[in-house]
Amino acid sequence: MSLESFLLRKIVKRALEEDLFFGDVTTESVVPEGLCGRAVARAKEQLVVCGLPIAEEVFRVVDPELRVKRRIGEGEEVASGTVLFEVSGKVRSILKGERVALNFLQHLSGIATLTRQFVKAVEGLPVRIVETRKTIPGLRYLEKYAVKVGGGGNHRFGLSEGILIKDNHIVACGGVREAVERARAAGPHVFRIEIEVRNMEELREALSSGAEVILLDNLSPEELREAVKLARALRPEVILEASGGVTLENVRSIAETGVDIVSVGRLTHSARAVDIHLKLVDIFD
Amino acid sequence: MSLESFLLRKIVKRALEEDLFFGDVTTESVVPEGLCGRAVARAKEQLVVCGLPIAEEVFRVVDPELRVKRRIGEGEEVASGTVLFEVSGKVRSILKGERVALNFLQHLSGIATLTRQFVKAVEGLPVRIVETRKTIPGLRYLEKYAVKVGGGGNHRFGLSEGILIKDNHIVACGGVREAVERARAAGPHVFRIEIEVRNMEELREALSSGAEVILLDNLSPEELREAVKLARALRPEVILEASGGVTLENVRSIAETGVDIVSVGRLTHSARAVDIHLKLVDIFD
Amino acid sequence: MSLESFLLRKIVKRALEEDLFFGDVTTESVVPEGLCGRAVARAKEQLVVCGLPIAEEVFRVVDPELRVKRRIGEGEEVASGTVLFEVSGKVRSILKGERVALNFLQHLSGIATLTRQFVKAVEGLPVRIVETRKTIPGLRYLEKYAVKVGGGGNHRFGLSEGILIKDNHIVACGGVREAVERARAAGPHVFRIEIEVRNMEELREALSSGAEVILLDNLSPEELREAVKLARALRPEVILEASGGVTLENVRSIAETGVDIVSVGRLTHSARAVDIHLKLVDIFD
Amino acid sequence: MSLESFLLRKIVKRALEEDLFFGDVTTESVVPEGLCGRAVARAKEQLVVCGLPIAEEVFRVVDPELRVKRRIGEGEEVASGTVLFEVSGKVRSILKGERVALNFLQHLSGIATLTRQFVKAVEGLPVRIVETRKTIPGLRYLEKYAVKVGGGGNHRFGLSEGILIKDNHIVACGGVREAVERARAAGPHVFRIEIEVRNMEELREALSSGAEVILLDNLSPEELREAVKLARALRPEVILEASGGVTLENVRSIAETGVDIVSVGRLTHSARAVDIHLKLVDIFD
Amino acid sequence: MSLESFLLRKIVKRALEEDLFFGDVTTESVVPEGLCGRAVARAKEQLVVCGLPIAEEVFRVVDPELRVKRRIGEGEEVASGTVLFEVSGKVRSILKGERVALNFLQHLSGIATLTRQFVKAVEGLPVRIVETRKTIPGLRYLEKYAVKVGGGGNHRFGLSEGILIKDNHIVACGGVREAVERARAAGPHVFRIEIEVRNMEELREALSSGAEVILLDNLSPEELREAVKLARALRPEVILEASGGVTLENVRSIAETGVDIVSVGRLTHSARAVDIHLKLVDIFD
Amino acid sequence: MSLESFLLRKIVKRALEEDLFFGDVTTESVVPEGLCGRAVARAKEQLVVCGLPIAEEVFRVVDPELRVKRRIGEGEEVASGTVLFEVSGKVRSILKGERVALNFLQHLSGIATLTRQFVKAVEGLPVRIVETRKTIPGLRYLEKYAVKVGGGGNHRFGLSEGILIKDNHIVACGGVREAVERARAAGPHVFRIEIEVRNMEELREALSSGAEVILLDNLSPEELREAVKLARALRPEVILEASGGVTLENVRSIAETGVDIVSVGRLTHSARAVDIHLKLVDIFD
Repeated sequence: MSLESFLLRKIVKRALEEDLFFGDVTTESVVPEGLCGRAVARAKEQLVVCGLPIAEEVFRVVDPELRVKRRIGEGEEVASGTVLFEVSGKVRSILKGERVALNFLQHLSGIATLTRQFVKAVEGLPVRIVETRKTIPGLRYLEKYAVKVGGGGNHRFGLSEGILIKDNHIVACGGVREAVERARAAGPHVFRIEIEVRNMEELREALSSGAEVILLDNLSPEELREAVKLARALRPEVILEASGGVTLENVRSIAETGVDIVSVGRLTHSARAVDIHLKLVDIFD
Repeated sequence: MSLESFLLRKIVKRALEEDLFFGDVTTESVVPEGLCGRAVARAKEQLVVCGLPIAEEVFRVVDPELRVKRRIGEGEEVASGTVLFEVSGKVRSILKGERVALNFLQHLSGIATLTRQFVKAVEGLPVRIVETRKTIPGLRYLEKYAVKVGGGGNHRFGLSEGILIKDNHIVACGGVREAVERARAAGPHVFRIEIEVRNMEELREALSSGAEVILLDNLSPEELREAVKLARALRPEVILEASGGVTLENVRSIAETGVDIVSVGRLTHSARAVDIHLKLVDIFD
Repeated sequence: MSLESFLLRKIVKRALEEDLFFGDVTTESVVPEGLCGRAVARAKEQLVVCGLPIAEEVFRVVDPELRVKRRIGEGEEVASGTVLFEVSGKVRSILKGERVALNFLQHLSGIATLTRQFVKAVEGLPVRIVETRKTIPGLRYLEKYAVKVGGGGNHRFGLSEGILIKDNHIVACGGVREAVERARAAGPHVFRIEIEVRNMEELREALSSGAEVILLDNLSPEELREAVKLARALRPEVILEASGGVTLENVRSIAETGVDIVSVGRLTHSARAVDIHLKLVDIFD
Repeated sequence: MSLESFLLRKIVKRALEEDLFFGDVTTESVVPEGLCGRAVARAKEQLVVCGLPIAEEVFRVVDPELRVKRRIGEGEEVASGTVLFEVSGKVRSILKGERVALNFLQHLSGIATLTRQFVKAVEGLPVRIVETRKTIPGLRYLEKYAVKVGGGGNHRFGLSEGILIKDNHIVACGGVREAVERARAAGPHVFRIEIEVRNMEELREALSSGAEVILLDNLSPEELREAVKLARALRPEVILEASGGVTLENVRSIAETGVDIVSVGRLTHSARAVDIHLKLVDIFD
Repeated sequence: MSLESFLLRKIVKRALEEDLFFGDVTTESVVPEGLCGRAVARAKEQLVVCGLPIAEEVFRVVDPELRVKRRIGEGEEVASGTVLFEVSGKVRSILKGERVALNFLQHLSGIATLTRQFVKAVEGLPVRIVETRKTIPGLRYLEKYAVKVGGGGNHRFGLSEGILIKDNHIVACGGVREAVERARAAGPHVFRIEIEVRNMEELREALSSGAEVILLDNLSPEELREAVKLARALRPEVILEASGGVTLENVRSIAETGVDIVSVGRLTHSARAVDIHLKLVDIFD
Repeated sequence: MSLESFLLRKIVKRALEEDLFFGDVTTESVVPEGLCGRAVARAKEQLVVCGLPIAEEVFRVVDPELRVKRRIGEGEEVASGTVLFEVSGKVRSILKGERVALNFLQHLSGIATLTRQFVKAVEGLPVRIVETRKTIPGLRYLEKYAVKVGGGGNHRFGLSEGILIKDNHIVACGGVREAVERARAAGPHVFRIEIEVRNMEELREALSSGAEVILLDNLSPEELREAVKLARALRPEVILEASGGVTLENVRSIAETGVDIVSVGRLTHSARAVDIHLKLVDIFD
């Protein structure tokens, strides 16, 4: 997956405006205008790199004459100390873009790194790790991208990009079957219908309703195993997704129950930032 | 600190647009148009509540006729299970706003909760816990607010809101004294001049340069103690800030060295989301 | 389906800005400031009304004190001469909003009216009439809404809201099976996979690839009938969509071939505007 | 007339955002990232080409490295089958821009084609065909351009770009003479004053009021002829515009009455899209 | 002339964002949150008030619960010391809006005051004082409004709102007659054609070209008198505008030459701000 | 100080949109499309040039192929008649950008020129001339830049960029000491605390409160001299700023009182535009 540059640019400008609303007082005061140099971005811990195109765009928006040279590919896993990229050009421009570029990189690499850990934890199993809509407001597009870069798959992007009938919908609508029928009648035919269930009774109803994806919410591994068995018996082609309280510790046991998808909220809402530094290594006259 | 409503509205609209670009397909299909109800937001763990005005604005933008009743004050620490607020009105509107409201609340309460933990960890000491510019792009205003709600103080908001001479600036400028003099000559008189130092030699130079705030970067507690002693001897009024690798475990020992400010990047870049749910509890005909 | 008011407002403001960039020179010059009145919007031909919420929003943005009273419901079919709504308040405000409100109404009612004609043409057949992505740039959200109001269903909203593998994709990818497999591996599980075919050979390949929706592009009714027969024999649950050159004259014969969906580009790209007038009927002192 | 590129870019970005809000799921999944190719846009019916600069801008915004080669000039009339332009570069980028580029082209060429038909229908007569403010919301600038490309002239762009006193203004103001006097007193001297009349009595009043342009609204050819005669007798220099229910069938008889301008709402509100296809014709490795 | 509220709001938000990008640090720190009060805006010199609706909008955007009571009408001339309006509500909100509200008021009242002086200087003469396009970037709409409030008239708003052929156009086009003919052929019929001349020879050419408005640029009163005489002799109905170096000292002698319009750049580009203060006069508990 | 290009572009686009909302009707009608030429911008009076990067950006946004050649440096003082820059390329593009480019240049050079006069008036004295927040709405960033270019310094940019406790704050808060203490407790440590005083009594209180900057508002030179004496005696390091009614006539006597800063509202709110012309000097075929 690659990012659309015109969408990226908008997000990057917003972030730069936030940091540079009246310019960079320190740099403008302290660093001579014409001074050029080279800086190096380095991982300070083991991580999966994500966000290089965004960092490049940050420096491009700040100063189109800055040159960024990637030293590692997007999505690669690197050891602490690895150089990720170099940026050269006017020192003022480098310093103005530094923090915003790193803020994107550290956050998105944090998500990609955590996703990779989840993906590795289920290695060999026929399961896909996906994120949820529990994203940081304003960054959904980039966070969904980071999950992909980390090796995960995507759930729906937002409320316009899929049908997922949750418990509140069922309550409001009066029942599983009724909800599925309404969704089928009114929803675009390009969407599968997914419905959330919380116990075996709801699962049975969901299976008989014809929903094509069933989200098993907050079931224990034992319950999941039972659910999978029932579902495979009645409707082998149905797609099963497990969700709720998934951690690096329990994800494998959840995946081993035979579900097709495991969705993990913390990939996007709670990944910690990884540590990346930018150091000026050369000054040219 | 209160949030400016016209700034808030812009951020909220952006977040809603991200989730509802072509509307909520599921809810529009499944939930009857006129149906009204009441939903309750509940903490699922102990937390410091932050973001109630944002959640309210989310529901207001989705549907000005929704009514939100706060059951707890912004900034209060609550136990798991506590009801935070109720929202009532059209069920469709409640469900459309739910996720975005919770995404704000969970992220900002996560920051406020973590900040409160740091503040408590240094209780009784004459020190202020502040955040850094390592914020999630697009959310700086709200994250700085969450730190305040959590009991912390603010560092500068961005590159336009203060003078902080960092190592890269010193390298580019040719020395501590030179940098401070340029900043004093060119910077607005409303800003103090802050400079980052990494060892005792730089500290001495910084002290003699007249900088009013000194950021002691990545020093051990022992080094910090020595630095404080030297600074207090030479320039008792200078403000000392410690930064770098601050955790809940080491923050008290850092604070005990006598610095005035401890700045903590992870308050904003790595606070995990806290768990908050919204459940429909009533349906009216 | 109802429209999200915050999305609507943005589109309406843009349209008003286009017409009123420096205000309404004529009205400001000619109509006394305080003068109030009442105007009536009337259908000048038989039509399906669509766009009342948008017209209301136009008048609301121009002047929050204008009062609009609907005399007919959104989506109703009315005879020529029927009053659609009344608007009362300052005459200046009514005249400033008039043209933009009518432009929305005439265009969207045009789409809804044409859609209704297509829907009626296939009455009694188990088929759904949907639109395509051939929409007027900038109005997709409203045009998809108008199709719904007219009684049609929606195809995917845009490139982010579904998977549709077209002939150019197949060429680029090297084959039907390859394309479907890649889409299944990389696409979100909430989307069905739809693929376009242009003849029986491609249809066979598509059927065996496991795609869940097949778009039969530009086939004649005879070819469609044969295609449906083959598809139902091999994979009864597959969803079949016919597209290409669909008109009011041939839509029933296409629908009678047994396809599930007929997609019609002209619903949005070529619906003519219907005729609606606004007349000032009262002046108050 | 040429289009201002910074205005164009804004409209194009909005249209692309509508189609690509979270990217192109299909293309990203199915088409290899580095794959390059060439596609050809071809008219599928006889038409007047309009929108080439917009199509070019669409591809430029999607991917600045795409190359578009025009094969025909803006405003030329071409036969079905004619190649309009080629676009080459990354296949992914071509496919992402395709639909939006075509949506602009088909709509604007539709307007230009219809305008050309009207212009041809009055060939040899000293009359100008112009559009009205009945445009599709959001596209007025482009639609007015398309009318020019088709050979028509422009009426005022919006309410800020001219003075046109309509029946509702006269009602509100209390009379033709009063309205013209107010407009003359308050309006900028760079605008002519135009007033709408619906019968001979109003025409007499308008002529004696000194209005420089008179819009003869919904008069029959016979009435128009009489109106022209009267106007030419009393004020030979007055500009006469006919409007209301103008079709390709009746436009010549209207023009033959001797009016100077015929304004035609359907040029912009009801021109059907013309048919243009884009096909990938080469794939490079 | 009244201002469109949706256009106003956009300008006001932009101005507030500029002053309050991360909120008002001083007020938030120093003023208790719930404190209410009343402040009074007072003229500190004789002036024509302009901008009351903008000041009101500023306070409304900052805090919809603030109440503004006008004590004087828009456009009135007041003595130093006169109270213009009162604003009451939360003290924090009043102080946050104060400067931006005053910045608009002082600038626009400055323009209105200067315009009034020019208008008075030509009292009794059949001439209109208008502004030019030499406005402060971003404020044209408001500045044109202020000229109207001051008693002047408007020239064209921008390059889309009229035809004015200047010397550079004539040079580029090859002559006065050629330029006027092209403008007549291509320009909308709702615009008069205005052309700039700098001497009697150009004037003769302009008169014979049929241009309806002639801008006499930088002629002395004697030259103007001669020009008027010639123009009135040849084409009595032509509108004559004088421009270039007009001051309060020479405007009457220019107007007395018999021109219809005098356009004055300094009304908008060089009006000094008038002095208006806001003082808190009551604090409520 | 240099301007951030992404911030600049936004302001420039807004200004161009204001002048060119539907394009330049005159130029499009009158000037042949392909015609190229060269124009020269010339000072028509003595001035300090400011705004060259903005003028360049204006021409770049209008047409990226225009070439601007500076003939003088930003901030230089030039005599009447001096050529500032040349612009060459399409004549249409030059004429479209002309007015907006000049509007920026004339306004900003006006501010820089006035600032230079103030700076020269205090030559040799250890004082800094700064502007205030009394700027033209929407142009603060550029106006603050112009003051710098003119040789002045900057005060805080806005309410988020410093702490300045004014009389209304003191009234609301209950006293000087209380206000300073609250600001110290709640405000970021990167800001000095500035407080406004209007007499010796308030000055004493301010000095003892520990505020680091004291704004002496509207004191006479005699009072200022006394204030300086007192302040230097009690707190030699305190920064003293004088403000209120500062003119070119009295600024030296104010500066001679020994204050550190003189802030001058009229630099930004009342600088008159300087006179700069652009003339087409060459036409190429």
